[in-house]
Amino acid sequence: MNIVVAGLGIIGGSLAKAVKKYTDNYVYGMNRSPEPLNRAIECGAVDARGDETALGKADILILGLYPEAAVEFVRKNGMYINKDCIVIDTSGIKSEICPQMDKLASEFGFTFIGFHPMAGKEKNGFDVSEADLFRNASAIIVKGNASEEAVEKIASLCMNIGFGRIVYTTPEEHDRMIAFTSELPHVLACAYVFSPNCPNHNGFSAGSYRDVSRVANINADLWSELFIENKKPLITEIDTLIGNLMLIRNSIENGDRRELTRILHKAKLIKEELGE
Amino acid sequence: MNIVVAGLGIIGGSLAKAVKKYTDNYVYGMNRSPEPLNRAIECGAVDARGDETALGKADILILGLYPEAAVEFVRKNGMYINKDCIVIDTSGIKSEICPQMDKLASEFGFTFIGFHPMAGKEKNGFDVSEADLFRNASAIIVKGNASEEAVEKIASLCMNIGFGRIVYTTPEEHDRMIAFTSELPHVLACAYVFSPNCPNHNGFSAGSYRDVSRVANINADLWSELFIENKKPLITEIDTLIGNLMLIRNSIENGDRRELTRILHKAKLIKEELGE
Repeated sequence: MNIVVAGLGIIGGSLAKAVKKYTDNYVYGMNRSPEPLNRAIECGAVDARGDETALGKADILILGLYPEAAVEFVRKNGMYINKDCIVIDTSGIKSEICPQMDKLASEFGFTFIGFHPMAGKEKNGFDVSEADLFRNASAIIVKGNASEEAVEKIASLCMNIGFGRIVYTTPEEHDRMIAFTSELPHVLACAYVFSPNCPNHNGFSAGSYRDVSRVANINADLWSELFIENKKPLITEIDTLIGNLMLIRNSIENGDRRELTRILHKAKLIKEELGE
Repeated sequence: MNIVVAGLGIIGGSLAKAVKKYTDNYVYGMNRSPEPLNRAIECGAVDARGDETALGKADILILGLYPEAAVEFVRKNGMYINKDCIVIDTSGIKSEICPQMDKLASEFGFTFIGFHPMAGKEKNGFDVSEADLFRNASAIIVKGNASEEAVEKIASLCMNIGFGRIVYTTPEEHDRMIAFTSELPHVLACAYVFSPNCPNHNGFSAGSYRDVSRVANINADLWSELFIENKKPLITEIDTLIGNLMLIRNSIENGDRRELTRILHKAKLIKEELGE
């Protein structure tokens, strides 16, 4: 197959590398700034520079771009995309993106499938991408209007390049779950490091500090877009969290050891029931 | 030296194992329930069962007990403890414990030094203890009324058994910093897993979920004691965090991308300045 990867950041770059490492497909790379693309060609992550001609031959187009930028890319280049091509995005938001993409797909004749590879790092860019970033990770797929055959093609590519499982979902479920599993921890990490005691943590910290603060090393441009595009589910999660923090806080303030133990033990049971 | 370890949970057990692995000291173990002590003798983590006689010969007594239980142990056994012995606790709270211990030390004639080894796991008990749990970790020492010679003896034992650094502090600074680096992440983890979406996270989660929720697998008995004993600094941290969460929340609700980007970028700068 001919696979075009547009946007060679950590996600697009890692997908390109994985495709080259684990399959025989031919990979075209496209990127707004030239340096990452040059490095991708040098290291063999992509075979050649992509352009309108490459889009016309593409069996799969992977959009490794910010959500709105991905829509923009398709709007601008839709006329060049092969009508038999399956276009997948990789963005962390689906309700805002899938309907726009479905519309563009029917306008230009290609197939669109919503896609979200569940892995990342607290660093960004092509230089931190790696072929095995998605090893055993979950690949979330929003089928939308795509045929079973098209979905099967993407799912099997995912399994071939190292993903551990495929999860099928709707845009709404995706966004509700991601607000909890991914966006809320990023909000938390940022709020956490604003403590006046944070700059002096060294020598007083171990795994707990490291784990909670890790993703505060955030890509502010990307995540501010994601947070606002997923406003409703995310605010619900933040409010739920604050409510539960208050519950714990008040039992501490009241010195109510029994109530506090009961609350904390409930958290332990949730983790245990999940086998974690 | 003769070293008595009282309380063979993850912390006491790991310290006993480290002393046996890295030094030639003789280790006595004491534990309320017999099984962990039996297993500690079997695997060589301790050389023999401790008792009043062992306490009378001890050069160092390590209290691997919950904070109040450690004070109780010393109150009950103080009369047996060698007057040349250095007693160290291992608990996560210092303002509540050090003054009581200092009083007992002058009453019974031994030396007390506040000690907090900065490592742990989300599991507890002797069976998860390991000799290298403290490898490169920070050892926090509250000198109190101890002589420089006594402090030096504990510090050099720490370096010999694998700790990476010694941090000297006061009970107040210790408790303020630990409220931020350790207690707050535990409060957070518990509040986080109470989200109604938590039980369904599988397939939608990756590192962020794992890291924030890890310590929700909490020892409710121990941490409820620690939280309440450190009420004031911990509530200050929780309130600061909630304030900062609200700041982020409100800029999301207002759809204020510029303000949100500014806030998130500030978090990134804090991490970068810390070299993290």
